[in-house]
Amino acid sequence: MSQENKPGLEVCLSPALLHLYDLSQKIVVIIDVLRATSTICTALYHGASKVIPVDSVEKCMEIGRQLGAVTAGERDGHIAPGLEHGNSPLEYPASFIQGKTLVLTTTNGTRLLHMAKDAEEIVIGSFLNLSVLCDYLIRRNKPILLACAGWKDRINLEDTLLAGAIIDRLKSRFDIQCDAAIIAEKLFSASRKRLLENMQQASHFKRLTRHGFQQDIAYCLTIDQAAVVPVYRDGAIELA
Amino acid sequence: MSQENKPGLEVCLSPALLHLYDLSQKIVVIIDVLRATSTICTALYHGASKVIPVDSVEKCMEIGRQLGAVTAGERDGHIAPGLEHGNSPLEYPASFIQGKTLVLTTTNGTRLLHMAKDAEEIVIGSFLNLSVLCDYLIRRNKPILLACAGWKDRINLEDTLLAGAIIDRLKSRFDIQCDAAIIAEKLFSASRKRLLENMQQASHFKRLTRHGFQQDIAYCLTIDQAAVVPVYRDGAIELA
Repeated sequence: MSQENKPGLEVCLSPALLHLYDLSQKIVVIIDVLRATSTICTALYHGASKVIPVDSVEKCMEIGRQLGAVTAGERDGHIAPGLEHGNSPLEYPASFIQGKTLVLTTTNGTRLLHMAKDAEEIVIGSFLNLSVLCDYLIRRNKPILLACAGWKDRINLEDTLLAGAIIDRLKSRFDIQCDAAIIAEKLFSASRKRLLENMQQASHFKRLTRHGFQQDIAYCLTIDQAAVVPVYRDGAIELA
Repeated sequence: MSQENKPGLEVCLSPALLHLYDLSQKIVVIIDVLRATSTICTALYHGASKVIPVDSVEKCMEIGRQLGAVTAGERDGHIAPGLEHGNSPLEYPASFIQGKTLVLTTTNGTRLLHMAKDAEEIVIGSFLNLSVLCDYLIRRNKPILLACAGWKDRINLEDTLLAGAIIDRLKSRFDIQCDAAIIAEKLFSASRKRLLENMQQASHFKRLTRHGFQQDIAYCLTIDQAAVVPVYRDGAIELA
């Protein structure tokens, strides 16, 4: 296939750069490895009926009440006052979440989801669903933007690594004219053999470790642990 | 030396992220490898008395007239109408530029220089002055922000590579708590042996090659070809 016939693939490494990209004809993959998109994949893989991402604790409580749903969200590493659960994917085994609706508020991932509303389609990416996500994107054969949540608009290591892992799998089938994509792929190639070890330098690793979430990090870097393709549609995330 | 006693080193990969960093106590290194900061280093290395960066063709013409200076700038790959010279560093050999003032307008680098005006000090970085620049930064022993010009606010490969090259030399002496710095350094480490070859994927490589500037790219990736430390002060760039 010639370059020209392949759909494009771009990467946006921070929400503060999202305005530089035209989202209208694209599938946008939301990436917030630690931990929003990993938690969403896990909850749906374990049978949650849907995940509703909201941008504030108040909205989380309100929708939770209306729907009789599980409410979850943290602020500064602790369950936010008024909510029942945290942002750790390990809090959502099938024995707990199956058949339930999860209302989730996170700082970076939820905000980015809402920012991407003009996209043709919004899907959720994590290491946990890497293979099925890539298969899905290949089947859809549309232009893609990988959108990294980062941390308070700063670029972070784990989201850039996942963008690189996705590109590593898609690069032969998509046209890449985006330096951020080249950077992400090179980073992943150089780190793939020791993903967890490489993450120990990351600012988020230190932040989560301080709050006792070491196990979360190892889990969120596990490839293909939750093989689902979550899609965001009409305010809720469900399986594609 | 303990981490705590080392000055910090951060990297900003796009001017659109500059607002996330506090510049006030920092040395900001402006990086625009293709080609603004390479051209500035070259002109000063070849004896230009100073370089005045301006943000428009009109201002370039006006200051050029006032000072009887050489005016230079391109728009869309051609010398801008009203100016005398282009942005190629190869246009500024000692036989031409020695003792002269160069008034230079570029799209990305000049704008970033002006955006960084709150910094304690602003210096100019390129592969051409890598070693002397790093020696200078080690001697100064102050917190550093490496600020990449990118391309129209998008992250680019060559500026990220240079940031990585600088970090590679400084990392033992500075405290790095910045994921963008980790990413840049890893990118450089994975690319250092074939810098020019790696650049061939870059969007800017293709752009400059279309305009016939292949030689510029090879030159701008040459380490230590123009061993000067240009400093921006009171609207002009001169040797430190």
